[in-house]
Amino acid sequence: MPYSFPVERTSSPKPKPDPKQLGFGKFFTDHLFVMDHSADKGWADARIVPYAPLSLDPASMILHYGQGVFEGLKAYHTADGGLLLFRPQKNNERMNASNLRMCMPTIEPELWLEAVKALIREDRDWVPKSEGTSLYIRPFIFATDPFLGVRPATLYKFMIILSPVGSYYPQGINPIRIYVENEYVRAVRGGVGFAKTIGNYAAGMRAQMDDQQKGYIQVLWLDGIERKYIEEVGAMNVFFKIGGEVITPALQGSILPGVTRDSVIHLLKDWGIPVSERRLAIQELYEANQAGRLEEAFGTGTAAVISPVGELCWANQKMEINGGKTGELSRRLYDTLTGIQNGMLEDKFGWTVEID
Amino acid sequence: MPYSFPVERTSSPKPKPDPKQLGFGKFFTDHLFVMDHSADKGWADARIVPYAPLSLDPASMILHYGQGVFEGLKAYHTADGGLLLFRPQKNNERMNASNLRMCMPTIEPELWLEAVKALIREDRDWVPKSEGTSLYIRPFIFATDPFLGVRPATLYKFMIILSPVGSYYPQGINPIRIYVENEYVRAVRGGVGFAKTIGNYAAGMRAQMDDQQKGYIQVLWLDGIERKYIEEVGAMNVFFKIGGEVITPALQGSILPGVTRDSVIHLLKDWGIPVSERRLAIQELYEANQAGRLEEAFGTGTAAVISPVGELCWANQKMEINGGKTGELSRRLYDTLTGIQNGMLEDKFGWTVEID
Repeated sequence: MPYSFPVERTSSPKPKPDPKQLGFGKFFTDHLFVMDHSADKGWADARIVPYAPLSLDPASMILHYGQGVFEGLKAYHTADGGLLLFRPQKNNERMNASNLRMCMPTIEPELWLEAVKALIREDRDWVPKSEGTSLYIRPFIFATDPFLGVRPATLYKFMIILSPVGSYYPQGINPIRIYVENEYVRAVRGGVGFAKTIGNYAAGMRAQMDDQQKGYIQVLWLDGIERKYIEEVGAMNVFFKIGGEVITPALQGSILPGVTRDSVIHLLKDWGIPVSERRLAIQELYEANQAGRLEEAFGTGTAAVISPVGELCWANQKMEINGGKTGELSRRLYDTLTGIQNGMLEDKFGWTVEID
Repeated sequence: MPYSFPVERTSSPKPKPDPKQLGFGKFFTDHLFVMDHSADKGWADARIVPYAPLSLDPASMILHYGQGVFEGLKAYHTADGGLLLFRPQKNNERMNASNLRMCMPTIEPELWLEAVKALIREDRDWVPKSEGTSLYIRPFIFATDPFLGVRPATLYKFMIILSPVGSYYPQGINPIRIYVENEYVRAVRGGVGFAKTIGNYAAGMRAQMDDQQKGYIQVLWLDGIERKYIEEVGAMNVFFKIGGEVITPALQGSILPGVTRDSVIHLLKDWGIPVSERRLAIQELYEANQAGRLEEAFGTGTAAVISPVGELCWANQKMEINGGKTGELSRRLYDTLTGIQNGMLEDKFGWTVEID
């Protein structure tokens, strides 16, 4: 193993949270991984240190011009006490694609993966074991130059923090209600929609809050140009089963290329279920529902894995999907993905990576 | 004056930078203003403290979901030793509009303005006096909850930092060369283009870097929908003088409502020069130039005030404007605005605010 990192262990380990109270992203483990980038040294001074506040100049560019990207992946306990990551290389690839779009330095895949593994090894007793729980891994990079001119930074920090998590939604895999957003737009081709950059998430909050006031937990985003075509749901990719075929919006620059999205497409093909990546108009979806052909809808993402959609509201039209219940395919995908992730099912695609 | 803030003075004042070496946003004064927001207390604990690194949890939402907005304005020394702000209320209004769009807490105008004034009073000997210099004021707000769920934060910090500055561009008011961007898009209606939120600036850097490699210092952004209509130039608003009429793109949600933009419109109207805010296609601009009717072009913004544009490159067409020289109107606007800002010219619009 070519990479090893100096470790400074905490002298005051924190108490572990109650596994029933984990929620999502509220608790953090005892250590973090950090390394620093400068123009002359590249990435340097990689180390594992106690989880603690960081010191940032108030002029640090991240606070002013938003050059930041992140990733999210999970580690799972297997029944025999092992630890598995799920397709971590895809997260490194996507992070590097985000970095290029945002004029930020990329990270060599092996260094990135070894950093993730080394930190988890250090905090392995934080990985929760109950069903539906996992260790959420958050690698992120941000600009730190204390400078107010608008240009890419030269100094960056890469950090990894870890959070033991339960379900993303308090309601677990139960179906969520979604509002088709007609005022706000998440991203447009030529913009940064495909990058996992921090500004995309702040930009989506207004619609999320407004739609929650109407009683909907997430937003269905339409394209920014014609305001017709389905893009994403909240911070997830979205799939629809119409007349036996599964359809998800094609990746055309404005949509995040989800790892779970990609995995679902692989599974569906493997199962012989027709799946297509194409443009899907909200009108087409509405008509399919009217004709009784809209069988299931679900969001996909690392945090929630599969989120069935029980109701869509478009303008004043409410579309109930599958009687508001979790569909058979959504359930099968959830069970299969989580089964592969925690080592209970055969990993025929070679998706999992063991942490020894 | 209803607001007063506790002041903790620095025990180690920094040396002042050489006024010739100021550049833009590189040096910061001895103190900063800070206050904290929570859901129950609102904005609280306003104070002036020594400029120093801040302590942030690595899970702070600003680093992950980009909920941050900022403003930029300047303070100028007058010949008789006074200090003037230029239309600061406009910056407070715009910051509050940005806050609402980004689901962040607004700040009451009087509190905001008194905070700016109080901090400048504290560091008034940092306001540079040479021609072309000023004190750049950077108020900013960012989310601090240590939480990884995607939703608006509940905890925020508002800070003001101060930087003595010279010209934004090393070349001063000399004309800049601009590339008409045809691949990347800055913002689209329904998005956050009108808000001064941090993600907009990171999103613009890729085009800026690519175009700089082609030898152009800034980007001319076209609209994200039809890719035809002019929006902004770099991080400035843009104006064109065509056949005696001055045209600037109308504000329709994707363009930042600049304070300098608004001031230029007021001045032009006052001078009896026709000015219109409307859609302006790049094709129309090209044809005007071919017909010899494109007389001047300039960007407007707080940092550079007026930036004449000497050349535009659209696809492979180079359009030289006004022989590559600073136009008469650009110069007149620059002289008038900076004259009002530093108190040398009559302030007939009541734009300046004195710091006593």
